[in-house]
Amino acid sequence: MTDRREFRDLATPDAAREAIASLDLAPDPETVPLADARGRVLAERIDAAIDVPGFDRASMDGYAVRGRDTFGADEADPVELDLVGAVHAGAAPDVTVEPGTCAEISTGAVMPDGTDAVVMVERTDEVGDGDRPDRIAIRTAVAPGDHVMSAGADIAAGGRALGPGTRLTPREIGLLSALGIDEVPVEGTPRVGIVSTGDELVRPGDDLDPARGEIYDVNSTTIAAGVEEAGGEPVFYPHAGDDYDEMERLLRRAADECDLVLSSGSTSASAVDVIYRVIEERGDLLLHGVAVKPGKPMLIGRLDRRGSDPDESGSDAGESGSDAGESAYIGLPGYPVSALTIFRTFVAPAVREAAGQPEPATSTVEGRMAVTERYGEGRLRLMPVGLLDLDSGTERPPLVYPVDKGSGATTSLVEADGVVAVDPDTEVLDAGETVEVQLFSPDVRPPSLLGAGEDDPAFNRLLDRLAAPRYLPVGSREGLRRLRDGVPDVAVVAGPTSRDVDSVVLGGWSREWGLVVPEGNPASVDGLSSLVESDLRFVNRPPDSGLRRSLDDALDRLAERRSVSKSDLTARIDGYERTVRAFESPVRRVTAGDADAGLGLRETAERLGCGFVSLGEQSVTVRAAPDRVDRDAVRELAALLDDPGADDPVGSLVGYSWDRSPDL
Amino acid sequence: MTDRREFRDLATPDAAREAIASLDLAPDPETVPLADARGRVLAERIDAAIDVPGFDRASMDGYAVRGRDTFGADEADPVELDLVGAVHAGAAPDVTVEPGTCAEISTGAVMPDGTDAVVMVERTDEVGDGDRPDRIAIRTAVAPGDHVMSAGADIAAGGRALGPGTRLTPREIGLLSALGIDEVPVEGTPRVGIVSTGDELVRPGDDLDPARGEIYDVNSTTIAAGVEEAGGEPVFYPHAGDDYDEMERLLRRAADECDLVLSSGSTSASAVDVIYRVIEERGDLLLHGVAVKPGKPMLIGRLDRRGSDPDESGSDAGESGSDAGESAYIGLPGYPVSALTIFRTFVAPAVREAAGQPEPATSTVEGRMAVTERYGEGRLRLMPVGLLDLDSGTERPPLVYPVDKGSGATTSLVEADGVVAVDPDTEVLDAGETVEVQLFSPDVRPPSLLGAGEDDPAFNRLLDRLAAPRYLPVGSREGLRRLRDGVPDVAVVAGPTSRDVDSVVLGGWSREWGLVVPEGNPASVDGLSSLVESDLRFVNRPPDSGLRRSLDDALDRLAERRSVSKSDLTARIDGYERTVRAFESPVRRVTAGDADAGLGLRETAERLGCGFVSLGEQSVTVRAAPDRVDRDAVRELAALLDDPGADDPVGSLVGYSWDRSPDL
Repeated sequence: MTDRREFRDLATPDAAREAIASLDLAPDPETVPLADARGRVLAERIDAAIDVPGFDRASMDGYAVRGRDTFGADEADPVELDLVGAVHAGAAPDVTVEPGTCAEISTGAVMPDGTDAVVMVERTDEVGDGDRPDRIAIRTAVAPGDHVMSAGADIAAGGRALGPGTRLTPREIGLLSALGIDEVPVEGTPRVGIVSTGDELVRPGDDLDPARGEIYDVNSTTIAAGVEEAGGEPVFYPHAGDDYDEMERLLRRAADECDLVLSSGSTSASAVDVIYRVIEERGDLLLHGVAVKPGKPMLIGRLDRRGSDPDESGSDAGESGSDAGESAYIGLPGYPVSALTIFRTFVAPAVREAAGQPEPATSTVEGRMAVTERYGEGRLRLMPVGLLDLDSGTERPPLVYPVDKGSGATTSLVEADGVVAVDPDTEVLDAGETVEVQLFSPDVRPPSLLGAGEDDPAFNRLLDRLAAPRYLPVGSREGLRRLRDGVPDVAVVAGPTSRDVDSVVLGGWSREWGLVVPEGNPASVDGLSSLVESDLRFVNRPPDSGLRRSLDDALDRLAERRSVSKSDLTARIDGYERTVRAFESPVRRVTAGDADAGLGLRETAERLGCGFVSLGEQSVTVRAAPDRVDRDAVRELAALLDDPGADDPVGSLVGYSWDRSPDL
Repeated sequence: MTDRREFRDLATPDAAREAIASLDLAPDPETVPLADARGRVLAERIDAAIDVPGFDRASMDGYAVRGRDTFGADEADPVELDLVGAVHAGAAPDVTVEPGTCAEISTGAVMPDGTDAVVMVERTDEVGDGDRPDRIAIRTAVAPGDHVMSAGADIAAGGRALGPGTRLTPREIGLLSALGIDEVPVEGTPRVGIVSTGDELVRPGDDLDPARGEIYDVNSTTIAAGVEEAGGEPVFYPHAGDDYDEMERLLRRAADECDLVLSSGSTSASAVDVIYRVIEERGDLLLHGVAVKPGKPMLIGRLDRRGSDPDESGSDAGESGSDAGESAYIGLPGYPVSALTIFRTFVAPAVREAAGQPEPATSTVEGRMAVTERYGEGRLRLMPVGLLDLDSGTERPPLVYPVDKGSGATTSLVEADGVVAVDPDTEVLDAGETVEVQLFSPDVRPPSLLGAGEDDPAFNRLLDRLAAPRYLPVGSREGLRRLRDGVPDVAVVAGPTSRDVDSVVLGGWSREWGLVVPEGNPASVDGLSSLVESDLRFVNRPPDSGLRRSLDDALDRLAERRSVSKSDLTARIDGYERTVRAFESPVRRVTAGDADAGLGLRETAERLGCGFVSLGEQSVTVRAAPDRVDRDAVRELAALLDDPGADDPVGSLVGYSWDRSPDL
């Protein structure tokens, strides 16, 4: 392994920003049809080339008159004028209005020669023959200009309509339409090549072989979506392995075709090494390693284009000049949350600037720390955090809590809403302290409800009935601990619990649990004793889970009956320590033939076609923090627990029944 | 004219909302590729179908070991283990680690059989032959599970990944990728047909004949952009004239193809009448006329689809069932600001809901009224307002000022940022009062600088150097008046002024003005006397303009010299009262042959190829309100006036020179 990866001289975050600012990733302006211009940014000023309106225009339905002919007219003493014709919108007037006459006119029509005002139809009467009136009684006086928009009064030819840098929303598109413009000069869209590296990566949708260590490529799609959001156009390149020649070919192709090349994906040192060598040999490495956590292995540089390489292209240097000889390059860290954080913090602003797009108004929010957080590594930390908007509609900032699931967890992507930049000098963020959260996307919204606790299929279905909840399936014990620490609104607790946490029970149900076995129960498992006595491969759940707690209680009772210690029993269970994370996981091990028995629910066993040996029922309760019971989303959940309505998400599950006991 | 247009029974705004809510415009959910899913909304819950990671995964580069083999190891007393092989990311392990041995492992690789922890490479040393070390010294103890992410630890198969209704931002797309999902079920995109009506409308880009009263179609493009912004797909239909059969055919084609049909465009009563008849005869009119200003003539209804009409289609009723027999229909008012206001207030929420999209966080802002506004018509008023964010970065809400340029002005589209809904019972909004502004688009940002006053080509070029300014070319006199009333930051004042308004002069220049005549000056105009004495067709500027003020002063002096009254002189100028709006307008009248002389600048005359007879120079000053001089944008403007840098926007114009006199 090379020592390059040790990043002995880390650059400061500011140096990284400067290095990125020194890169040129702005594309040339382009012209787009007006219909495609929404969200784009004007590259130059637009002046009106025509008068709007282009003619003196009636702004009411009524009669076009000479204002002075109506002077003195009122309800009691109308003036009568000869009707000489009519003018409609979209037609050239074919009448001339002499003194003492008038013409019928529609809103939007051209004022006929001789007229300077319009009398609203409501202030007139037809006089004479009913079918073809030839005189009009005018019951009000109008001044010249009344109910007329004169030519150019809206905007005149030569007037400044929109300035450069204007972002085109529907209203600007409206004004451009009024000027007859159907193509607009806008800032170009930076093309951002995404090169995904690492032998282990598989594109979503393709088959995965976990035994070979394959995982789905998360970064390419995540970063591509971020590029789009920042106003760039993502361009995907095929996965590159860790081979130098292949990587070189791919990076230079991307450099030829794009304004910026991002590499991302692999966490393996060898892939990073290969990229490092390509950039050093075929480009210009500006910076390697930044004092920021996460993101240390960030690379910033330039990549030569093939067209600029004399030994490859000779004099045929392509359409662009010498400054087109290179593309910007940024290497992102491999873990998804790290990659998105570094993209959000360092790269997205550069893409936005190149696209001429302003920073979105909603890209940061203020919040207050829910818990105290300590840190002391002496480099900038971009701490992933979740948000909970406790007092929506009030001025109180949302609650901010750290999300630290460890590097590499992709679920942190949706459990965190953004990052707080913690200064290298800051060692403690106190609970209650105000912090600024840089949201992962301007579209990120805090969840309506935050829950934590047991992983339960009925609760999952209840969550579907709520708008934008967030639930962390951390197990019953950990859920209660977090409730006590003041972060979630509710905890879901299954089975017996020793923790005494102040909470309000919103509702609950019971679920049947036991041993999940292959279909037909081939080993004739009939209870816990089979597990202890037969040579069964068992799969357990972790200690935080409510199911495990019930199993341990049952083992305690069995040990007591047999007058042995519990550890005597567990030592005889092959797989007691083999724990898997979710409620379905043990069942899936059984169906895959990797285990003879697993800890699980009747619901899951039956749904996945397994046999089931019941060991009992356990209660599941939904508990709210006492100071959160009045929140809208908590009330909504409580109401749902009280009356789930049609298609009962709890009662309709096998082995489930509502617990309506009064002490709940 | 029919009396339908008088809307005798106006519905309440709430009744209009209810009528729209009763329409079904939600399309069916659809499945889209993940790459196109950004911004869409999940139609159903997504559970994990696989464990992530799919295997026990090394989360560091180092050596895979049995944790218990390292117990007791430390820097002083390392443990040595036999190196039996290596495992890389993306490869199946081909080693088994027996007690006392270890294997090199890369981040992301599969933990080989027999191992349960990773020792970081930094805490190890190679022992033995330099080229091919066969033993590794371990300088730290690790516990089972250290630096290993176990299978399913991120998310396990069966776990709830994302709930229905989740909006897909980059991070959700990341999690879906991790699950291997490349297609997602999302809420459908409502198709919104836009039928533009009125004989007078011409599509932007086509030729316009103003003499026939033609204008460009503003509403279609504006509303289409609004539909896109709300999550719908706009579908344009060809312009319809005022013919019943053509309109019927068009509306029913749109109903066949869309979830919602909007008609919009014409302000003429006859087009509205035709639509009204089509809806009554070929659909179902729910509501006609709403007590809201603007927007009274709103129509809400349903349109039969042709497929549902037995005498047209017989039994061949098409692919969809009976509920597919109609489409929702809403008729918008004809004036652009009215149409966008009604769309924003009543229609966009329905389109968003049909698309499953939440209301954008930035769709409303709080502001405080800059001026007192009176109103008393007894119906809901949606008052167009502009915003000015005086204290960006602070908690003070932005300044809100009414924009009332009269119905039909398309420039109001960009001069107003949104609307304030003024309750029918509210007769006065006091200056300083807090109001809620519904922005026209979530992307609308208040301008950085608000200016008002003289229309001047040099100032237009200065504006191009500022980010997001707004300038209202209302004339010098009106600009000063508004500065006094506390709305704009700066006023641009040309020529003599009688107003005494407390202001700080930021800088200024002088510009040469006079009479613009055809090229070569065929009538040999040599000054004001020619205007008075010859039979020239003159074009003037309005009294608010600084140019007009200088002309009037010069006429005063001429009258004095001749011992006549000024009105004696002006009565002899053919066209003294013929005023046009912008500084280029008189010049354009001259070039078009519609006038023999016009009031204008040497700059404009020379640029547009006209002759010019100088009448003098006038000063132009940029004046700031005293309480605004410290605003960033005002300072920036002042700096620019002080030192415009290269490509001087003032000094480079013909007839212009900077005024650097010390009293400025």
